[in-house]
Amino acid sequence: MRQAGRYMSDYRQLRKRYSLLDICRQPDLAVAVTLQPVDVIEVDAAILFSDLLIPFTPLGLDFDFIKGEGPSIDRPIRSVEDVQRLRQFEPREALGHVLETIRILRQELRDSVPLIGFGGAPFTLAAYAIEGGPSTTYIHTKRFMYSQPQAWHRLCARLADMIADYMTAQVEAGAQAIQIFDSWAGALGRTDYREFVLPHTRSIFDRLLATGVPLIHFGVGAAAILEDLVAAGGDVIGVDWRQPLDEAWARIGDRSIQGNLDPALLLGPVDRLFSSTDDLLARAGRRPGHIFNLGHGILPPTPLENVQELARYVHNKTQSSILRTQNPETAR
Amino acid sequence: MRQAGRYMSDYRQLRKRYSLLDICRQPDLAVAVTLQPVDVIEVDAAILFSDLLIPFTPLGLDFDFIKGEGPSIDRPIRSVEDVQRLRQFEPREALGHVLETIRILRQELRDSVPLIGFGGAPFTLAAYAIEGGPSTTYIHTKRFMYSQPQAWHRLCARLADMIADYMTAQVEAGAQAIQIFDSWAGALGRTDYREFVLPHTRSIFDRLLATGVPLIHFGVGAAAILEDLVAAGGDVIGVDWRQPLDEAWARIGDRSIQGNLDPALLLGPVDRLFSSTDDLLARAGRRPGHIFNLGHGILPPTPLENVQELARYVHNKTQSSILRTQNPETAR
Repeated sequence: MRQAGRYMSDYRQLRKRYSLLDICRQPDLAVAVTLQPVDVIEVDAAILFSDLLIPFTPLGLDFDFIKGEGPSIDRPIRSVEDVQRLRQFEPREALGHVLETIRILRQELRDSVPLIGFGGAPFTLAAYAIEGGPSTTYIHTKRFMYSQPQAWHRLCARLADMIADYMTAQVEAGAQAIQIFDSWAGALGRTDYREFVLPHTRSIFDRLLATGVPLIHFGVGAAAILEDLVAAGGDVIGVDWRQPLDEAWARIGDRSIQGNLDPALLLGPVDRLFSSTDDLLARAGRRPGHIFNLGHGILPPTPLENVQELARYVHNKTQSSILRTQNPETAR
Repeated sequence: MRQAGRYMSDYRQLRKRYSLLDICRQPDLAVAVTLQPVDVIEVDAAILFSDLLIPFTPLGLDFDFIKGEGPSIDRPIRSVEDVQRLRQFEPREALGHVLETIRILRQELRDSVPLIGFGGAPFTLAAYAIEGGPSTTYIHTKRFMYSQPQAWHRLCARLADMIADYMTAQVEAGAQAIQIFDSWAGALGRTDYREFVLPHTRSIFDRLLATGVPLIHFGVGAAAILEDLVAAGGDVIGVDWRQPLDEAWARIGDRSIQGNLDPALLLGPVDRLFSSTDDLLARAGRRPGHIFNLGHGILPPTPLENVQELARYVHNKTQSSILRTQNPETAR
């Protein structure tokens, strides 16, 4: 997750000339940034470089990224009228630049590593749209949810439709797996998640079944509602580092699991990084269906060498031949 | 929790003339603010008005509160030398103003409601000291913990000794219960909590047993490590709203539980507030040992009337006569 980004000097160089939105919107730049980690780290998949909020522009929610603060939405949603003014759009037209990025990436990657596309889950997108930016308390979001439940459900249904369309278009363009991020679902108690969120997230996963690609469902700080994330959908459940992997997997049941090393371990000494990785791999126990990953995105001050060493270490420990090879024909 | 604060107009009035630190440091002001909610809300306990960071000043960690940002520490801890320069102090002298506040409060409250004192747990205090203020990623804290484990343990041991002394002094001054806040413990995975935090938090609870007062241990977003918080200590475990109360209680076992209504419910309509309260009380099932509370502090935009109505509603539903009365003698 967030395998391309500020921790890479090539990315920081590019950001001197282009904004984050420029990079997301210009296929040649998005392709270059997506490929940066694939070229220098032994990753087993490429992850489309984009942002959860990219579809906000065609929805009619203008925003920008403020340095050091994150996204800022010009007119946050606060009323049913705000929900009604959201625009319908055809992702194949309005987000054609993302789909073009995916098409180019598939050509560039050939069959070396698969390409993962992604989008936001309804709660996380609704919370951004209502708060107008990042939050730690979700005051506006929860007040909206409790005070205007009909408008809330209308908003989430609209976002779910939009994301299902957009993800379908990503797969048509060449994405070989889809990850749905519910980064903020951990702000909710279970009762609220079940009432206000689960049906909308489930509708996305139900519609994406038709794409035939593996679907990953990821939440942060969601240990209290893990079974509910599973109920909402996903072939693979992504978990953060707060819960040991084996216990999370026992709760998830018969699905695959992705995770769950604390990305902060990449900031410290490699002996600690490796011993924690050993513990994680022991908990996975070579059971098929574990996708080794961090429990959240790579942190900006992370040394690139540590990420490279981690990828090598995991491949050596698991003796998994990575998918990419000089000769893709023989690897498949 | 945080029952006095910005949501009360009397408090906001006082804050026009005095800083948060002024109020914490001047017993007459701290007494007045502590009593504001006791006077207007049917609460069953008074909570000392103070701040987790008050003992930082005598430790040698100067700080101030920056409007809209929270605390800011002048010279955050980043090395073993920074840990070594922490000063020893006698709370009965250096924090005499807090103890004086407690003594006055006991006189003012008589036996109407008990007074709860509080302090921070080692992880939360260490994270403040290392980050220098609030954080969402705890990058500096975790890097310190992983890179300099000996300095980390020395820091936490020092903080644990200090808090145990300070809390003992609060009880001597009249505090009738103590709550230890580990507000940020939820940032850690279980393995890290057990290795880096649990022994230090446990040493506080072990030492506070001698005080004879009830001890409350509260963590936020800590559903993944709940059993470990229990193992660290506390007669009462405080839980946030993310996990249903009955399930959290089953994990906690034979201890009391405090919680766990989402404070955001106080921002919405009262019918939703009351139905969620009904659900919570049903999960508590009138089992002795449930302390009804919010799952975290009251949010600043909360209408006072909603807090008043909630307290009345809970008392009516549980038919508990509140402890305070015109005639304290007959109430006991």
